[in-house]
Amino acid sequence: MYNLLKGKKGIIFGALNDKSLAWKVAERAYEEGAEFILTNTPVSMRLGEIDALAKACNTKVIAADATNVEDLENLLKQTMEHFGGKIDFILHSVAMSMNVRKNRTYDDVDYGFFMKTLDISAISFHKLLQSCKKIDAINDWGSIVALSYVAAQRTLYGYNDMADAKSMLESIARSFGYIYGREKKIRVNTVSQSPTLTTAGSGVKGVEGLMDFTERMSPLGNATADEFADYCITLFSDLTRKVTMQNLFHDGGFSSMGMSLNAMSMYNKSLENPIPDDILR
Amino acid sequence: MYNLLKGKKGIIFGALNDKSLAWKVAERAYEEGAEFILTNTPVSMRLGEIDALAKACNTKVIAADATNVEDLENLLKQTMEHFGGKIDFILHSVAMSMNVRKNRTYDDVDYGFFMKTLDISAISFHKLLQSCKKIDAINDWGSIVALSYVAAQRTLYGYNDMADAKSMLESIARSFGYIYGREKKIRVNTVSQSPTLTTAGSGVKGVEGLMDFTERMSPLGNATADEFADYCITLFSDLTRKVTMQNLFHDGGFSSMGMSLNAMSMYNKSLENPIPDDILR
Amino acid sequence: MYNLLKGKKGIIFGALNDKSLAWKVAERAYEEGAEFILTNTPVSMRLGEIDALAKACNTKVIAADATNVEDLENLLKQTMEHFGGKIDFILHSVAMSMNVRKNRTYDDVDYGFFMKTLDISAISFHKLLQSCKKIDAINDWGSIVALSYVAAQRTLYGYNDMADAKSMLESIARSFGYIYGREKKIRVNTVSQSPTLTTAGSGVKGVEGLMDFTERMSPLGNATADEFADYCITLFSDLTRKVTMQNLFHDGGFSSMGMSLNAMSMYNKSLENPIPDDILR
Amino acid sequence: MYNLLKGKKGIIFGALNDKSLAWKVAERAYEEGAEFILTNTPVSMRLGEIDALAKACNTKVIAADATNVEDLENLLKQTMEHFGGKIDFILHSVAMSMNVRKNRTYDDVDYGFFMKTLDISAISFHKLLQSCKKIDAINDWGSIVALSYVAAQRTLYGYNDMADAKSMLESIARSFGYIYGREKKIRVNTVSQSPTLTTAGSGVKGVEGLMDFTERMSPLGNATADEFADYCITLFSDLTRKVTMQNLFHDGGFSSMGMSLNAMSMYNKSLENPIPDDILR
Repeated sequence: MYNLLKGKKGIIFGALNDKSLAWKVAERAYEEGAEFILTNTPVSMRLGEIDALAKACNTKVIAADATNVEDLENLLKQTMEHFGGKIDFILHSVAMSMNVRKNRTYDDVDYGFFMKTLDISAISFHKLLQSCKKIDAINDWGSIVALSYVAAQRTLYGYNDMADAKSMLESIARSFGYIYGREKKIRVNTVSQSPTLTTAGSGVKGVEGLMDFTERMSPLGNATADEFADYCITLFSDLTRKVTMQNLFHDGGFSSMGMSLNAMSMYNKSLENPIPDDILR
Repeated sequence: MYNLLKGKKGIIFGALNDKSLAWKVAERAYEEGAEFILTNTPVSMRLGEIDALAKACNTKVIAADATNVEDLENLLKQTMEHFGGKIDFILHSVAMSMNVRKNRTYDDVDYGFFMKTLDISAISFHKLLQSCKKIDAINDWGSIVALSYVAAQRTLYGYNDMADAKSMLESIARSFGYIYGREKKIRVNTVSQSPTLTTAGSGVKGVEGLMDFTERMSPLGNATADEFADYCITLFSDLTRKVTMQNLFHDGGFSSMGMSLNAMSMYNKSLENPIPDDILR
Repeated sequence: MYNLLKGKKGIIFGALNDKSLAWKVAERAYEEGAEFILTNTPVSMRLGEIDALAKACNTKVIAADATNVEDLENLLKQTMEHFGGKIDFILHSVAMSMNVRKNRTYDDVDYGFFMKTLDISAISFHKLLQSCKKIDAINDWGSIVALSYVAAQRTLYGYNDMADAKSMLESIARSFGYIYGREKKIRVNTVSQSPTLTTAGSGVKGVEGLMDFTERMSPLGNATADEFADYCITLFSDLTRKVTMQNLFHDGGFSSMGMSLNAMSMYNKSLENPIPDDILR
Repeated sequence: MYNLLKGKKGIIFGALNDKSLAWKVAERAYEEGAEFILTNTPVSMRLGEIDALAKACNTKVIAADATNVEDLENLLKQTMEHFGGKIDFILHSVAMSMNVRKNRTYDDVDYGFFMKTLDISAISFHKLLQSCKKIDAINDWGSIVALSYVAAQRTLYGYNDMADAKSMLESIARSFGYIYGREKKIRVNTVSQSPTLTTAGSGVKGVEGLMDFTERMSPLGNATADEFADYCITLFSDLTRKVTMQNLFHDGGFSSMGMSLNAMSMYNKSLENPIPDDILR
């Protein structure tokens, strides 16, 4: 709509289906004039509908396991070949916890699973960055964004080892952002997004109650996947060149709330003698 | 009980009655071997029972309006005379908002009241510190603590202009802590305490609902006034000499929580179709 | 260049001359299709060259003292009359400390000056927001940005009472952002900008040394006024609708740095036996 | 000196020699009346002088590899047998990066080494906590402390993958602190300590320059190992029962500093035309 990404090339990780955050980013980036390669694991590609997205965005999909350096290097090389040069932006939206999937609570984690959570959800980001830098795959002033969540700062029951992975992901964005910034002027940030009913998110236990709570806590309500895509566009654009090593909350204000009138009123209904709404004002 | 403050002299602001945080700090400091002067405004002295506390702690009360530099200087001089020398610690527990008292909501504040909130709740701390430094009232390695609240970082409806005052209070602790540290090795910190049912706290609208929520959110429950006193003792002691310019959360873990199982279960009861507890585990 | 603000109306505070951050924001907003009113105090209007800016942006200047509620209401009413309706964005770039100007160090502040610092640099923002809300001057999903600095979180010698004012400014953004968000979907944020050689900034003692340090600490270097303007454009646009109550660092990464190789190497030169650069790598 | 830990039992990880932070904690805990088991890896036990410490503290050493769950369980069981019951406190001071040791820069890490860094420096803490909880090794209201560093929040060149490990360590303290708090009232915190010239710390490149800088930046100077020990005593004592899930800076104020006069003056000496000291005041 604004041609904000006109002439920019990129790679988008993690589009599974039309509920995915990455899917929406791809659609919006395309609208804004970007060209990009889509990528996901072979398994996710079979499960999802990424080919339809590729068609709609006039591009192709290159399979890659984000934990495999060879795969990443191959992806980057093929992408550079495809575009005949370096790229400008990357979205990393990759996360998975076997402990969550297998209902291993955080005080009973399997350490093999834990390592896998870290490898898929955090170290994959380092592998991507290191591969990019070694191959010199990104133009100066490029922009890299990874998806995070407020659990990196504050504990939410049931979020399990993903909280630790997100903390580490944000740390990697800072640590590598320093090096990539000083040497190539490339910026690296994470966006901490509201809980979103993606296919991934909907697996989390009791997510509806949590989303009702965060919706009422956030003065602007939960941020949607479409809004996430809009925000990413600004971060990939040339208008945010000096923002780096940041974790940016995109959450309708949730992260800065202690208690809203709306959430408190709802909560009070659960008490035996709820406090009348009018004295809460 | 441990003689942690043996030989230490101090001043304690803000003891109104036996529910006050400052009252508990006085009792505990006395037990730990400290000597101190109690102080409060003339009005609060009439309203409260501070004389009983003074008697129990074998000390006296010197009236002072904490927003009045002359009063503060007089307090400090009298205190130094009383002890025949400098002091070692100070507790600042002073806060008031006329906007809250007069039910002026935050989008309809009276700016005269706002200035008064800042003067009483934040600038008074600067006035105290500046007076102490000018008079050279505090021994090297002394310790100063002011009372804060998580509203300085996260918005709680109804907390009004006190949130801004607490933010500024914490900033003053850093700004003056730098100067007092470099020149006199004196440390300055704030303690961010759980909501507590003091006479001051109980005036806040809907505080019971909030305290139920924070109790359930905090893995260790809300911190009590007695526990606050214990914590202050450690901060006044010689064991925390290199902690300065910090805001220290003393809140049973609340500040690091996004959502607890306990609070979520309670919240879900308020939904039309609450999620069964067992799938929340 | 992108028409990001096409059809949007706004008010820009604080353009003094072509070094001002606000000046650059005005120029960029104009390029992006926005219409806006410029405002400053009568004194600043005389000192500066704001009329030239108004001419270049095809607009006019309305004088207002940002600490004066009547002036603000008058400004808002005239602005709404001018545009025949509500506005969409505001930039608040207003700050002044008489203690800094008069060389009153932070341990010797004048409290009249301190109150003035707070009134001009922080409470003026509340007055603006409250006036806007009372008059209903801003369209739903509007965006308000105020200028902050990292001194709100970390003490820099010589920054004096401005640090406390900036802390409070950021708190006001959260506190009012909650209310304005829940009632009108309007977002309120602060941008924490690198030190910039504006007319205001150049008055700070030893600012060249500090800017050399922050330049070397920041992997992308200090953010310039032009880059600040670009960033503000994204925050005023419709692409950042769910970002609110945030303090956003626009500083080339400085806020996330502990120590860079570049700054350390420079620092080491000052040591008697500097550590050879090659072992620092 | 105060009997603050009288009757308390514990385990102390990571005492290598008399420069170790853990060594100092052991000495102070002993003075304060605690009984504890010392533990370290077999290799560290051979390299260091832990037996001398054990003798001085009238206790014994049980070897354990902190990445090995069996070893940890064995350690806990032997410890409980030794004391005839549960313990009250643990110090986790365990960290190592092969990437640092082998001079693999952060943009050229070996991922096997990276995993090892995480396992030793962060996951070992989870393994310890999970083992403790499964065996029910800790009394209600027990206290667990792990050693962290400001690199978890801010990037320091050369700190490499240890920054990510420390971020994750602090996240684990929050995540497990929530569970251990709600179920057993046990608190879990990290202490973020000044750089200290331990045997481990002295391996970091250019650490002298950094320590000179942090010494001058911190109003109280760098915190020493002895002071770290004092602070840990307060965290193990009953006076800090409601402090949990926190990262506590023990650093002379460094973490809250943006720039000190002292560090700036030193830095300016390195400039070609240094700014005279007197205009910096």
